[in-house]
Order: sequence, then structure tokens, then C-alpha cells
Amino acid sequence: MIGAVRRVPPGYLEIGDDVAAIPIRDGYAVLKVDMLVESTDVPRGMGYREAARKAVAMCVSDFAAKGVRPDSFMASIGLRRGATQKQVDQLACGFRDAEEAWGVRMVGGDTNEAKELVVDCVMAGFATRIVERKGAKAGDVLVVTGLFGYPPAGLKIIMEGARAAKVFRAKALKSVKTPTPDLEIGLALSPYLTSSMDSSDGLARCLHVLAKESGVGFDLDRMPVARGVANFADQNALSLEDLVMAGGEEYVIVGTVSPKRLRAATAAARAAGGDLFNIGRATAEKGKVRLLEGKSRKSIGDEGWTHLATPKPSLRSSRTS
Amino acid sequence: MIGAVRRVPPGYLEIGDDVAAIPIRDGYAVLKVDMLVESTDVPRGMGYREAARKAVAMCVSDFAAKGVRPDSFMASIGLRRGATQKQVDQLACGFRDAEEAWGVRMVGGDTNEAKELVVDCVMAGFATRIVERKGAKAGDVLVVTGLFGYPPAGLKIIMEGARAAKVFRAKALKSVKTPTPDLEIGLALSPYLTSSMDSSDGLARCLHVLAKESGVGFDLDRMPVARGVANFADQNALSLEDLVMAGGEEYVIVGTVSPKRLRAATAAARAAGGDLFNIGRATAEKGKVRLLEGKSRKSIGDEGWTHLATPKPSLRSSRTS
Repeated sequence: MIGAVRRVPPGYLEIGDDVAAIPIRDGYAVLKVDMLVESTDVPRGMGYREAARKAVAMCVSDFAAKGVRPDSFMASIGLRRGATQKQVDQLACGFRDAEEAWGVRMVGGDTNEAKELVVDCVMAGFATRIVERKGAKAGDVLVVTGLFGYPPAGLKIIMEGARAAKVFRAKALKSVKTPTPDLEIGLALSPYLTSSMDSSDGLARCLHVLAKESGVGFDLDRMPVARGVANFADQNALSLEDLVMAGGEEYVIVGTVSPKRLRAATAAARAAGGDLFNIGRATAEKGKVRLLEGKSRKSIGDEGWTHLATPKPSLRSSRTS
Repeated sequence: MIGAVRRVPPGYLEIGDDVAAIPIRDGYAVLKVDMLVESTDVPRGMGYREAARKAVAMCVSDFAAKGVRPDSFMASIGLRRGATQKQVDQLACGFRDAEEAWGVRMVGGDTNEAKELVVDCVMAGFATRIVERKGAKAGDVLVVTGLFGYPPAGLKIIMEGARAAKVFRAKALKSVKTPTPDLEIGLALSPYLTSSMDSSDGLARCLHVLAKESGVGFDLDRMPVARGVANFADQNALSLEDLVMAGGEEYVIVGTVSPKRLRAATAAARAAGGDLFNIGRATAEKGKVRLLEGKSRKSIGDEGWTHLATPKPSLRSSRTS
């Protein structure tokens, strides 16, 4: 956000959380807008149908992390002058895919001419409680609803021709083309979360934001590495840490739970068809995000990794350029 | 709209009206999204501040026509890679202008990289009643809240170097750069309106849409020509009818009122600082939009004017190309 507004009236959720919240009699009207732009968000090989579905998925992911069931969405579309009827039909199919995947209704939109495909998704829902980014307390358990590395690996395969075994390659590409936010898991977990956000900007960035907003730090016991990602990193001489911590587009929920409620939270996530991974804890060391490795500690920088103050090239910056 | 959804559940306003409406306990959550794209919506001479304000104005105009007070807005922004801090600041100023002009709060947004400036405004409000496009009955009076022609004249001046007297030129350019929807007038009028929409796609198009949605026709007694527009048309050998009927970007409310309530509606519009112009009536001749000229009748086509079945070039198509 560009900081256009300095005053947020009481009851309104502050600009800067994953969603906006407008107080209504029974709670909040919850809104989110997320723009998908062809040149930065649609990698080679992703069709219009997948792009439309992804635009909605990006919003669903934020609702999932806030524990709010989305009700409806609108899509504001910019189409290139030469856009074909087939492309328009594919967008429509993608929106229908999203309706079916997450039980949301498309209630409107806007169609325009633009220099590249733009799909701006607006999502609306209603809630009595919203899990905010602030709220984590020192001692809370740090949890994630999934393991990391497939989407960044998929982008490396698409954009840079990275090599991968057949099964891993298929999984990684699928994770890029049809992102699947953990909506039901987020809704089931929300009563237990003291803070949370989605990891679409990368795990490291996400942890720094949660730390800053909550006034805590985080110590990770382990990296949440998805199966096969370490092999993929070795095979392509890539940094595993970059893939896992600085990748982005993961759509995993990252949150905190009081230790007393961890067991119940895990049961709730499993009952919703997911899982919950305990990867560390919130500390009183404000703004410090660290990975414990044996007896030493490695500092995790905001945009990705720094090790002994030597910044590594970030996967994220190469991906979005 | 691209017709992605065929079923609209009961209580939801159908896709295709000026706004989307989601039923909530006390009425509706009302949503609107409207995308401003640099290459089609930002004429030469319009700065980033004016563009940001215009993006919000486009949504305010729809809320005004529906009789719904907007509460909040979000802005999803695509910025060119080389965008300067000054341009970002100007956008922020434009959003603040909009907050002050219409008493709305900016509650969120999204910032992205794109090939041209894109400002997608999302507006939210709450209502117990929405004035729909359908609802006009044969015999209702056709009313407009303003006179037409300044914005199309302004675009002719900017895009084609049309000549104009100094005072007229200033007014026409101002109408393009700082569109000012009739929000308070729309709110004051809404209890009296049987149907309405905003005229941002041009008066002729607007009348055809209202006619189709309401199952009526319209006979106009006169064209609602703003002062000086006829002279401007003469001076530049332009069709006055095209300027008034096919221009677009007018942000005037076009609606219908029962004849019995016309006096009260006019008083309400005046009390809100505006005016109401009686320009004709709804008829039982479905889909027919005509202008009475003496004893003859001229048919008004959907996109603009047709006279004796000879289509004239539309201003709108030249403006958006």
C-alpha cells in the first residue's frame, strides 16, 4: 500500500493487513483486492483459464489466513486489443473453476482494454472475528499448514529450465499453475490462531511482517521443506534456503498458536483434511527471525536469507524481473 | 461482463446492474469495481492525481445512481516499472481528494508492476434499498440530474484540437479532468426513482439499457444540451446529437419518476444542491428510444444516433481508440 490514508476510524482494520474490514452491525464486511498482471504474475505455459483461477486463488488465500469464509467475488479485467473470444471464454472457465473450488459466487466485474492481461479480483465476505497479523505472543508456537518449495521450484523450471525428476516436475508445475489455498483448513484453524497471514510473498518476508506487527521475534527449529525440494536444489546448484524461505507464491498459512491449544489446533487442521506443522516459536526478541542449526543460529533477512551478513541473491527478485 | 456466472442466488442483485449487491441481515452490502486504464481512460494532460481521483469518481457515480452512500474504497494499482515517487505521491493525493470530495475512506489496496498505469477502484457501501435498472413503467417521467456535452467536447479539444471559446474550453476540460458525480443529489432522489443508472457510457446507451431492463421505451421531448455545446458543435462542424447522446463520461444520473412524485423529486434534488430536468417519458413501446422533433420522431440507436437508418460515426469509438 502506498500510504494514502493516515487515519483509520475505530473498528476499521488498519490498512496493511491481508484484508480490509469494515465494521457492520454483526461484525465485519471483509474485502480484499489482488491484481494479477500478465507480465509479472503469469509465467510461460499458464493459460487464461489458469490465470483467472489464480487471480481468485490469491484472494482466497488471504481470506483463509484471516479465518474468513469468502462469499463473493468480482473480477475487473483488462484485455489486450487483439484478445480472442476463446481467451474470454477461458477466463470465464477459470472463474467457474474458482466458484466450484471454493464455493464462492462471481457477482460482477468490469471489462476494459489494456496493454496486457490484467485480472483484478475483489473478494467479499463477512465475519465476526478476523485473525490479524498482530496478536502473536512470545512463547506461542509457530505453525504452518504446508511445506515449502514447490512453487519456487516450478518457477525455476519454467523460467530458467531447471532440471527435475518427472514426478517432482509435475508437482512443482501444478503448484504454480493451479495454486490451492488451504481455505477449509484456515477456517477450521482460525479459532486457535493468535496471529496469521498467508505466505504468498515468501516465508521469510511473512515471518518478518508477523514479527513486526506483533512485536515479537521468531526462532525456527527447522525449515518446512517439501519432499524432493532438497534434491531439486542439489541437482540445480540452487540454495535450498532461498527456495524455501524466499520463494513466494506458496499460499500456505503461517500463524501462531498458544502452546496449550496446539494439540486441539492440530486436530482441527487434520479434521479439515490438512495438517499443521510446528516449526518453531515466537520470542521476545522483537524483529529477530532466526533458524536454529544445532547450537548455532542463523539470521533470516527480510527478503530472504542473510548468512554472516553476506546477502545471497534472492530467488524472488529474479522471478519477478 | 463476460457472463461467467449463469445463476445468481435469490437476494443477490443480478450481474449487469451498475453495482453488485450481497444480501446481509439488514439489507445489502453493495460493491462496485471499475478499472481505469491509462491508454484508454487517461487523456493527454490528465495527471496521476486526477487519474486516481477519476478512478474513485467512476465508482461514486454508480453508487449515486443506485442511491447508495459509499462507505469505503480500495485501489488496486499497476505502476510502470519506471514510475517515480512523485507519481506515487500524486496518486495518493488523488485518493485523498476523493476521500474529501465524497466522504469515503480508503481502506486498502494492492500495488503491482504493469506495462501502463492501471487504477482499479473497489467501492463498498451498505443499503436497505437499491434503485435498479429495471423498474421504469410506461408513463413514468424521464429525468436527468444534469445537462450533457461538456466531457465529449473536452475530449474533442484534447484529442483532436477542437476550437472553443475560453470559458467554454475551461469548463469542458474541467469536466474531463475532475468529473464530479452527483452523489448527494442521487441519495436525495433515490426514494423517488423507479429506475436509474449513470450515464458514463453515453446517454443513448444508457436509455437503451434502462429500456431493455425495464421492458419500456423512451420518448424524449428534448435533448439535455448543456450551455454552449450547440455553439461548440457548430464551430467545429460536429454533430450536436453525437456530442449529447453518444459522448459518455458524463456521470449524470438518468432515471425515471412516477408523474405524481415529480414535484417532490425535483424539490429533493434542489434541496441537495442540484436540479432535475424532465426530458421525456417512458412508453410501452419496448426497446424504442426516440426523440420527438416537432411532429416527427427520430430513432436513437444503441451506440449513438441513427437517422433514417444512416449510422453516423460515433464519438465514443473514436475516443476510446
